[in-house]
Amino acid sequence: MSVKIITIGEEVFGANEAKAAENKALLDEHRIFTVNVLSSPGAGKTSTISTAIDSLKGRFRIGVIEGDVASAVDAEKIAALGMPVVQINTQGGCHLDAGMVRTALDSLPLDEVDILFIENVGNLICPNSFNLGEDTRILIASTPEGDDKPYKYPAMFTDTDVVLLNKIDLLPYLNFDAGAFRQVVTGLNPDVTIFPYSCTTGEGTEAWLGWLAKAAAAKKDG
Amino acid sequence: MSVKIITIGEEVFGANEAKAAENKALLDEHRIFTVNVLSSPGAGKTSTISTAIDSLKGRFRIGVIEGDVASAVDAEKIAALGMPVVQINTQGGCHLDAGMVRTALDSLPLDEVDILFIENVGNLICPNSFNLGEDTRILIASTPEGDDKPYKYPAMFTDTDVVLLNKIDLLPYLNFDAGAFRQVVTGLNPDVTIFPYSCTTGEGTEAWLGWLAKAAAAKKDG
Repeated sequence: MSVKIITIGEEVFGANEAKAAENKALLDEHRIFTVNVLSSPGAGKTSTISTAIDSLKGRFRIGVIEGDVASAVDAEKIAALGMPVVQINTQGGCHLDAGMVRTALDSLPLDEVDILFIENVGNLICPNSFNLGEDTRILIASTPEGDDKPYKYPAMFTDTDVVLLNKIDLLPYLNFDAGAFRQVVTGLNPDVTIFPYSCTTGEGTEAWLGWLAKAAAAKKDG
Repeated sequence: MSVKIITIGEEVFGANEAKAAENKALLDEHRIFTVNVLSSPGAGKTSTISTAIDSLKGRFRIGVIEGDVASAVDAEKIAALGMPVVQINTQGGCHLDAGMVRTALDSLPLDEVDILFIENVGNLICPNSFNLGEDTRILIASTPEGDDKPYKYPAMFTDTDVVLLNKIDLLPYLNFDAGAFRQVVTGLNPDVTIFPYSCTTGEGTEAWLGWLAKAAAAKKDG
């Protein structure tokens, strides 16, 4: 049977760029390497940030901004690691914007931070349209979500610097074609760096955190 | 370290109810049992609809409306099963609304449909705020997403009739507390029906599809 396609236009972009430039100038002044962390719900944003803190806290001072629709569950996990953290609750808003981040920056000790993680709201649709003033974007894809996600949420895979393919420890139990995934992602975004990875087993951690440490050191030592 | 919480208000609700009532009247007139299917990306919406079609197509005539930001990947899967299907591409919009569904209904043979699945955009934030004129809502949660999702996306778990807990075949490989999940979900939504379930192995299919068939038959014979 043939498929009928109806296309419906909708604007979701805001006038966010000026505020993002302010954030970028402030973060540059403090030589803070800032990472905007994006994914769908439950792909492993908080776990990825937690393992990065564990691994890098001897070499870098780390701060975190947590974005969620509701709750402070994630911020409490980060605070338990002894790191400065601010929770933003968007109350139904499906992404962070630069203004929310600006407000959060006022609550962080910027002179004592080398790497700032901004954990965005769990969503594969809207967050890519909002520059927060970050240095880099990390999109975490999770193997149980399936290898077709780049087809269905192409803008998120296009507008990122790094894709972490998390939960590779589950590959033996899934019907996930890692080669096909890589091919589609690099087709959308030829400059992307992909790190296969598992927060649970630690496999692949070294490559991704080596990349992050090198980038953060370059900004710190300017 | 203590957690600072910043709360930011944002309106995401639309004036959608009148159009939803129109849809409901049209669907009632044709005695079509209509299911709004919600989940985060990759939790198993299309697989759930496909397995329902396989199981129920001898007893019910089934139609599908597919909502996605981009692509017709899912609609092509459904069309391959021989079912009438309309793909809505929202072009960046993070949910379906009743107007989009009204347009899609014009392309479906309503006299030849007993059960209509509306697969919403993969998103745990916005879709719950938009009534489409459906009879029931199914929220699919996926075990690899973690048992804390009801805390973080409470409105989605509150505004649903059924929660399908999918991918229970992966439980042996995950740190997922099914009892804690059930407790939080029923705390938010005491009237919810929860079906643990696996699209891959078929475990739990009978209970959930039995529920669906009973509800659809009641409307058809109503």
